[in-house]
Amino acid sequence: MKTINNYNLDCTFKPKSIAVIGASTKPGRVGYEIVKNLINGGFHGRLYPVNPKGGEISGYKVYKDISEVDDEVDLALIALPAEKAVNIIDKVGTKGVKSVVVFSSGFSEIGNLELEKQLYRKCREYGIRVIGPNCAGIIYWGSNLYASFVPGVKKGDLALISQSGALTAVLVDYLNWKDIGLSLLVSYGNRIDVNEIDIMTYFRDDESIKAFMIYLEGFRKGEGRIFTEAVKDILRFKPIVVLKAGRGTAGERAVKSHTGALAGDYKLYSDILSSMGVALVDEYYELVDVAEALSVLPQPKSDNIVIITNSGGPAAILADFISYFGLKLPELPSALKEKLSFLPSYMGRTNPIDLTASGLSDIYYETLRVVLKDEWPGCILTIHVPPSFVNPVEIASAVRDAYLDSKVEKPLIPLFLGLRREQAYKVLRLSGVFPTPFNHRSAALSVKWLYRYWRARLRLS
Amino acid sequence: MKTINNYNLDCTFKPKSIAVIGASTKPGRVGYEIVKNLINGGFHGRLYPVNPKGGEISGYKVYKDISEVDDEVDLALIALPAEKAVNIIDKVGTKGVKSVVVFSSGFSEIGNLELEKQLYRKCREYGIRVIGPNCAGIIYWGSNLYASFVPGVKKGDLALISQSGALTAVLVDYLNWKDIGLSLLVSYGNRIDVNEIDIMTYFRDDESIKAFMIYLEGFRKGEGRIFTEAVKDILRFKPIVVLKAGRGTAGERAVKSHTGALAGDYKLYSDILSSMGVALVDEYYELVDVAEALSVLPQPKSDNIVIITNSGGPAAILADFISYFGLKLPELPSALKEKLSFLPSYMGRTNPIDLTASGLSDIYYETLRVVLKDEWPGCILTIHVPPSFVNPVEIASAVRDAYLDSKVEKPLIPLFLGLRREQAYKVLRLSGVFPTPFNHRSAALSVKWLYRYWRARLRLS
Repeated sequence: MKTINNYNLDCTFKPKSIAVIGASTKPGRVGYEIVKNLINGGFHGRLYPVNPKGGEISGYKVYKDISEVDDEVDLALIALPAEKAVNIIDKVGTKGVKSVVVFSSGFSEIGNLELEKQLYRKCREYGIRVIGPNCAGIIYWGSNLYASFVPGVKKGDLALISQSGALTAVLVDYLNWKDIGLSLLVSYGNRIDVNEIDIMTYFRDDESIKAFMIYLEGFRKGEGRIFTEAVKDILRFKPIVVLKAGRGTAGERAVKSHTGALAGDYKLYSDILSSMGVALVDEYYELVDVAEALSVLPQPKSDNIVIITNSGGPAAILADFISYFGLKLPELPSALKEKLSFLPSYMGRTNPIDLTASGLSDIYYETLRVVLKDEWPGCILTIHVPPSFVNPVEIASAVRDAYLDSKVEKPLIPLFLGLRREQAYKVLRLSGVFPTPFNHRSAALSVKWLYRYWRARLRLS
Repeated sequence: MKTINNYNLDCTFKPKSIAVIGASTKPGRVGYEIVKNLINGGFHGRLYPVNPKGGEISGYKVYKDISEVDDEVDLALIALPAEKAVNIIDKVGTKGVKSVVVFSSGFSEIGNLELEKQLYRKCREYGIRVIGPNCAGIIYWGSNLYASFVPGVKKGDLALISQSGALTAVLVDYLNWKDIGLSLLVSYGNRIDVNEIDIMTYFRDDESIKAFMIYLEGFRKGEGRIFTEAVKDILRFKPIVVLKAGRGTAGERAVKSHTGALAGDYKLYSDILSSMGVALVDEYYELVDVAEALSVLPQPKSDNIVIITNSGGPAAILADFISYFGLKLPELPSALKEKLSFLPSYMGRTNPIDLTASGLSDIYYETLRVVLKDEWPGCILTIHVPPSFVNPVEIASAVRDAYLDSKVEKPLIPLFLGLRREQAYKVLRLSGVFPTPFNHRSAALSVKWLYRYWRARLRLS
């Protein structure tokens, strides 16, 4: 399905005026939540709630019909039952609106293919670009546009583009738990028009976005090729992390019955995507962890990975994932060992470098200074499991200081474990240069895609 | 290395009297924490703190020397520096103690092989069984024995046997976060004598333990075969879940430098172990999630898995893992579809059964009743992502009621997602028959090992 027109997405993401069709005074209703979120989000432009009942919502006059609005409307947010949503397009189109978000469900996802086709045809007729239907809306902090019923999305510098509203909610919960925000959120549901390529292309140069996260269910036939072509261009500007459902046989069938999309075409392209440097992940938390890592970490200059740890067990588990993902954890060269000879003899000068439970903040600091300055290591992972007498925040501060003091651009992924890690991660996040992986797997997975991304990016530039 | 003698482990795990050698009045010291934990844990037996300084700790007289204790001592907990720990064995042995836990580090884990051999030889000479050295101690609630400095271990029905003290702490944090307790904790560190086989064999018939979790670093040469032989017997009684570090090349080297153990031998046996029904996992949280699942779930009676969900995206991700782990998610047979015809037409009667966002507690209940009663499904997974207007506790209650009302023994794994799931999982855990997986991966992994475990167990019985 081709896009409806070449009209760019300014009306969608940078609207000067918005009509909310199906605006409601009842909390819990989509038409209420959106108006509330737009107001609380601080939308700068003009807002026109529309509902045949008229009246007032939060101090805004409610128009009985969009035709009554005496202003140009850039974007219409449609929160009506499916059939009404289709029928309203005539009025919206006649009004000259060029962009809609259709929240309504009841289309192809429940087998109503015909109604979805009608929606598409009507929009096409008026040259209207569509996000949705069956979606949770859009948020773009660049224009204080909180046009979604997903609550609690904080300002940040990642972009999330998701076909599933439910998964969007799960991801936002995880982002909030990590205290990471988004610059852009697009829940595009059944994806009849505006798709992930349109969105990434539109935001390619947007400096408020450091990485794209995509949850994708279906490609339509032939779209895999279009996708791979398009990402080549986008990857020169920003990393892309994809969680694609429907990789296995069962998942493929699940996707088909969910959004009516074909998962199959993707299989043909996943190897290509991965070799192109698009990061592919399997779980929701990995989507966030890997995107966070790729958004903050610099380019690794050598393939040699070094682990610095205060406990052997977790280091061994991480080392297993390092091997599993095809990465290198070589023995330390003797010159580097020599530089580490200030360490007590019982702190292994092997790789992982095991500082043992006696590895306190000063030892972390000194060891990191050496390993950061030395040219041999291309990427450093630190692990810390706090003994009861150690405050992990002290170690996090030492890691941060060692990095900032060294003034070297080298990827450093700090893995903190145990419940008390939250404060440590908070300290690290504040400096804006460290990812905060959930577990060994996502720490190693981030490193894998960091290497692949940079390899591809150097080839592309 | 053979075990020191055939003396059973009663003195270790069911001691009537304990000496704490190196007892301390200083909070933070191992010798203080252990005494405190033994007292707070409610140890029934007699407690004898030992320290050359004498005095008193928490109302207990401190003996200057173990020889002064006018009582038989079953277990000595040794919290002394490494060399002193070795030297004290003569006094401990002369006193007739048959069991020690050596907390002290400074042995093979830092290259001090000779000192470790001395410790072993001395213990052997006196016929003393050893846990450790370089360990975090033991907890067995069956005798209110909290002889460990790991804080916060709650009473429950899983057993954790771990070579790494740091990983033990991480696992206990995760168990507490899930609000799951342990019946038994053994941190056995360098593992010079008592090993996981001794422990599992000793507790094989213990009804307070529903599953064994093992974090294992090294097998010594030839031990892989002994391990595989022994677990055959234990698996007839309880499931075993193993997280083995040192599977990859890098991890293997990490393990070797950590506890001086050989990881290699395990590789030869991992296929055998897995085909025997020993559940093998890769990450710390998987160790807990899979053990929880195997400890509460009944035997599946058919290979057909059914997913019931309120959101297509998460169901597709789960379906992908189902395929990845070699499990079956077939189309529903027409007889079962027929029974589900009470569902509105837009709720897919495919597999996954998608109840959509309209899938509230009554619909979950009715659907589950049908799927539980029908003989075709062998295992059921439910997914719930709460829309903002739904309290996940209501859905959890419906899942629980449907299961209890149906009076059918069928494995049911409920996956709740999003931050608000904690209360839902609390409700489910209280009934004692549901696991509470962290994510899609561990839900599917639990199902994989549930099938393998029962296949093996039926073969063994």
